[in-house]
Parts: sequence; C-alpha cells; structure tokens
Amino acid sequence: MERPGSMGVLGYAARSARAPLAPYRFERRSPRADDVVVDITYCGVCHSDLHQVRDDWGGSSYPMVPGHEIVGSVAGVGGRVTRLDQGDSVGVGCMVDSCRRCPACRRGLEQYCRSGPTFTYNDTDPRDHLPTYGGYSERIVVPERFVVKLPRRIDPKGAAPLLCAGITTWSPLRRWGAKKGTSVGVVGLGGLGHMALKLADALGADVTLFTRSPGKEKDARRLGADRVVVSTDPAQMKSVEGECDLILDTVPYAHDINRYFPAMSTDGTLVMLGLLGDVQGTVNTVPLVMGRKSVAGSVIGGIPETQELLDFCARRGVAADVEAIRIQEVNEAYERMLRSDVRYRFVIDMASLRA
Amino acid sequence: MERPGSMGVLGYAARSARAPLAPYRFERRSPRADDVVVDITYCGVCHSDLHQVRDDWGGSSYPMVPGHEIVGSVAGVGGRVTRLDQGDSVGVGCMVDSCRRCPACRRGLEQYCRSGPTFTYNDTDPRDHLPTYGGYSERIVVPERFVVKLPRRIDPKGAAPLLCAGITTWSPLRRWGAKKGTSVGVVGLGGLGHMALKLADALGADVTLFTRSPGKEKDARRLGADRVVVSTDPAQMKSVEGECDLILDTVPYAHDINRYFPAMSTDGTLVMLGLLGDVQGTVNTVPLVMGRKSVAGSVIGGIPETQELLDFCARRGVAADVEAIRIQEVNEAYERMLRSDVRYRFVIDMASLRA
Repeated sequence: MERPGSMGVLGYAARSARAPLAPYRFERRSPRADDVVVDITYCGVCHSDLHQVRDDWGGSSYPMVPGHEIVGSVAGVGGRVTRLDQGDSVGVGCMVDSCRRCPACRRGLEQYCRSGPTFTYNDTDPRDHLPTYGGYSERIVVPERFVVKLPRRIDPKGAAPLLCAGITTWSPLRRWGAKKGTSVGVVGLGGLGHMALKLADALGADVTLFTRSPGKEKDARRLGADRVVVSTDPAQMKSVEGECDLILDTVPYAHDINRYFPAMSTDGTLVMLGLLGDVQGTVNTVPLVMGRKSVAGSVIGGIPETQELLDFCARRGVAADVEAIRIQEVNEAYERMLRSDVRYRFVIDMASLRA
Repeated sequence: MERPGSMGVLGYAARSARAPLAPYRFERRSPRADDVVVDITYCGVCHSDLHQVRDDWGGSSYPMVPGHEIVGSVAGVGGRVTRLDQGDSVGVGCMVDSCRRCPACRRGLEQYCRSGPTFTYNDTDPRDHLPTYGGYSERIVVPERFVVKLPRRIDPKGAAPLLCAGITTWSPLRRWGAKKGTSVGVVGLGGLGHMALKLADALGADVTLFTRSPGKEKDARRLGADRVVVSTDPAQMKSVEGECDLILDTVPYAHDINRYFPAMSTDGTLVMLGLLGDVQGTVNTVPLVMGRKSVAGSVIGGIPETQELLDFCARRGVAADVEAIRIQEVNEAYERMLRSDVRYRFVIDMASLRA
C-alpha cells in the first residue's frame, strides 16, 4: 500500500545489528522538483556496509538498507532537473544531500559540509526527516546535484565501486597532486587498496604497495604496483627510505603508523583513509618534525571530483576488479569479506532482486 | 697557544651534562676559501641549548659551547667569498653546513638535507671532522652559504632570536601560506610562541593564542593575537570550532594534540614545532578523516628563507622581545628559563665575555 507522494520499493535490509539481510519492502518519496529517480542495476558491497549493518561504529538505525556504490538508469526526473533525462546511465555514491551553502559545499567538497552531508543510507533526509535507504534496492530517489553521469564507455559493474572505493582514493591522489614522477605508496590491498594502485598508476605515478603478506606481489603488479614492500621486513622498508611523496593508508583497523614515516620523502604526506578510530600506540613527532612530513585524513570525495573520476576512468579504461553476486548471496559475501576472500569488490546484480 | 691554521677563541662551555657553563678557551679553524669569520656581538639563549647542555636528547658531546642565534660583524673572509665583506652585519643560525647537493639542499631547505645538516654546535664539521662550537663565544667561522645578512634597519639584539625562534615559526607560516585572511592558531607562549604571534600578525593573519594560563591575554594581544583561548575551557574551545587554517604548536613537552583538531578548518594543518618525542596518548583519526585535516612537523628553516625573514622583519619593524644578559648570568638564565621566567628571550651581550 503506497502513501500519496511515495512509491513502494523492494530491497534488502537488516532489521537489527544481529540479523542477516533479508527482503524488505519500503517506501521512497515521489520525486521532488530537483530529484532524479534511478532504477538500480548494480550496487557495490563496501566494507562500511558491514560495519554499519553490525553497528560497529554505533548509532545505526534499523531497518537499514545499505549500499552506496550505485549505478543505474534514470527512470524519471522532477520538473527542475536540467542535466539528466530518462534513460541516462548514472551513479550515486555515499551522499545524497548537504547544506550546499557552506564553504566546503561551495568548493564542491560536500563530504566536508559544515552541517555534515546526508549519507545515502543510515541517515535522515534534511527535508522530510525520513530515514535514507541505500542501494541494495530496486530504485532510489536522489537530488540531481548528487547524481553523476556514467560515461558510455564504462562497464557499469566495474564502475559501481568507483562511487566509494574509487573516489575515496582518487580524492587524496588529486588533493596531494599525484602525477607522473610522484612516488605513491599504498598500504593494504583490499577494496580501497586495489583502486589506489590502479588510479595512482593511471595517473603516471611510481607506485609501491606496502603489505604484510608476501604473497600479493603478482596481483599487485597486475593492478599497477611498480614495487611491493613487505612492511614487516626491516630490510625492505629500509630500501624505500625517503621515497614516498604520498602514502594512502587504506587499512581499516588500528595499526602503528610510525613505521611508514621513514619511507616518506621531505614534505611527504601519509593519508589515513580506512581507519576511523585511534591509531595503535602513540605517534612520535621526530620524523615528522625533522622531515616536514604530514599525517592527514580524507573521506570519500566531492561530487564534481566523482564526475571527474568517472570521466577519467572511461577515458583510461580503468574499472574495479569485481565479482558479481546475486542479492540472495549478500550475507555470505559479508562473511567472505571478513575473511578478505574477495578480489576485490563484490557487486550485487540488482536484477536478482526480482528473481 | 694556537696551532697553525687555527685561532684561539674564548667562550663559555659545559664540561658535562651536570656542570654549569664556565669560561672555556678553544680553537677555531682559520678561514677556508669559502669561510666568513664573524665577531659575535649577541647570541640568543634557546631552550634547546639547555636541552643539549643537559643531554636531555642524548648524544651530547663535551665540552659543549652552545648558541645558535648569533649576530655579529664580519672580521674577515676567505678568498672565494663574494657576497660578504669585512664590517658587514651578519647572522648565523642553527646550521653551518649541509651536503649542498641533495634535493632539499637544492631547494634551499638545508634543514632537511638528506645527509643531515651540520649543526652550529654539538656536531662535527664535515670537512675537518672537528667538533662544532656555537655562539656563546667571541668569534665563529662559518661557510658563506650559511651566513645571512643583517639588514641595517634591524636592532641586532632583537634580531638574534630570529635566527632560531623566528625562522622556526616563519618557515611553517610560509610553507602553509599564511597571509591576510588566514586564521592562524598558536599553541603556547614562550620563545617560539611570541615570535609566531608577531610574525603571523605581521603577515596579516587572524591570530588566536591557545594557552592554559588565563593571565596571558594582555601580553598576547600586545604581541599580535586577535583572540586568546584558554585551551582547558571547553566553552572557549567550542567557540573557535572549525576556525584555524593553520595551528603552530610550540609546546616542547608531551601533550595531547587531539584537543586542537576541532578548532581546525577543513584542510587545516597542525604543525608540531616544539615537541621532539611521543605525543601524549594516542591520535584519533576521526576528525582528521572527516575534515581532511593534517598533523605535520617542521624544524627551523632554510638559509634563503632565513634571509627572507630578516628582510621582512627589517621592513616591518618586527623583532623579538628580549632581555639582554651578561654571559656570567647564563646559568641563572637557564634556571629562569626552566621556570618560564623570561619575556621572551634571553640574549647574551657578548661584550661581557671580555669584562
């Protein structure tokens, strides 16, 4: 039964932090004047979906429909939508709104919106104050400003993870000026790490993967690494002393960051992308002070730079390495993700929802 | 008795980590072709002199003649010196040599020399492998590249601390682009902090002093602060949330840096200048990630930017607030420095050495 001004949508939701994801029928608003209705074809499975479903970060609300690596096609548009039309291939990432007026929003960095952006799921719409529901569903309604165009030459399955894993690594690569000749280190080879290797390589950087597992050499090189350094081996770490202008640290759990400082060049920056919490142990300032090095953080990316990323990837033939699954397999995919048994991103084929 | 190729010099030295500074006669090399001989008129007393005299950082060697905030006049030059001549007013800071060939040296950032710069004292000359002795002495011999010109309009007493406290704050202000409209925070009001206030203010920045002591308001405003925030007062800290584009943290002992993160703007940077060691507690990445904020370090500054600083200060009438002392008072000055009983820098009048 639909309320006036809304439409029924089928998705998968978690009813609690302990419940598996299961079919869930809910309502989305009818499009406002600036809204775009997107029929979802694929949705990537991000590690943060799992964290939020299981309330690892606190503050989760249920039922929760996760998913913020969304691609699909435009099913309808509101009256004031100008840039998009029915049938267009589009993407929606982690954000579906922001204040649009603060300095960050004016710079196209909606992820740093002073009031906080509205996240695609597990958040509250700023206008109707209803919960937001994500991309593990048939359809989503999003303001035009937060919908990006999918270039024709890009494979939608491989493009879905660009909306989170891709932009999360692209944004710091651009912010810290990675280009031909830049030495870029990547810590960790998961969903983020594999995109970081591909994108840094495509930008012409000299790319080093830091990993604790010696077995990743071959895959890392295929993905774009020029060099693989086992970070627990002091001799290998010594061999890259002073090398990296930029290190993207994608590791999502507490770890010691001091060990990477010697590998950084003067004016080098280590950017934390994966960890939201305390670093392991304390931070020693000596290498920072004596080498003018920085530790920074970065989260996802703005809408204009997301569009830039999609255009770049289409031009350069870059996409995520994905394994397509049916939505009925999503709980098993979560378990496999916990075991790092994924090369490198699950993407849900949303046609399975109606199977 | 002088060796051939050297000259006798009177100074003050520590014979051990526990001994007070006392008169000490030693030899300096006769000038090499690229050397400048400087008759020292004033030498600032830096907190790091005390640390090194007392071997707080380890690795101190004795006898030690401290002092790296040196001003004086040229007494003689080697045959290949081109930029300076007898009688010129000059300054010598923390470094007296470096490799001159590495990327940092080529950028004029000798402080980040890949082989490490040669420090003015408590170090070893790279050519003759003899100990370096600092500015608590009559005379010093330094390669021309490491000698800066003192502009005529500057008071030499107030200029001496520019060679360390000044350049240590100037370099990060310039590196992170402080200018009119930039919001600059300064943590701590000692030798470094008082220079940071003056220089940030002279650059046109909006300046906030963070301090634990409410009593510093009046002095801070005189020195250039537009606002004083007591960092232990949550309401005052709340009032500057998101404000500072750049924070210079001059506190020389372990402290919690997390408390300053909320005061930083998106893309803001906290630069550690005073602490060489572990920060207190751990670092939480959430505000860094969610605001693209950075924690960096910086040490002193390069020779070209030291010259730039002296020229700027002469033009703008900026100098350190100093209390001149006789060298016989230096041990007492160290005790007063330990009690923070100095506004804001002791400078030794070197004429007292011959009294």
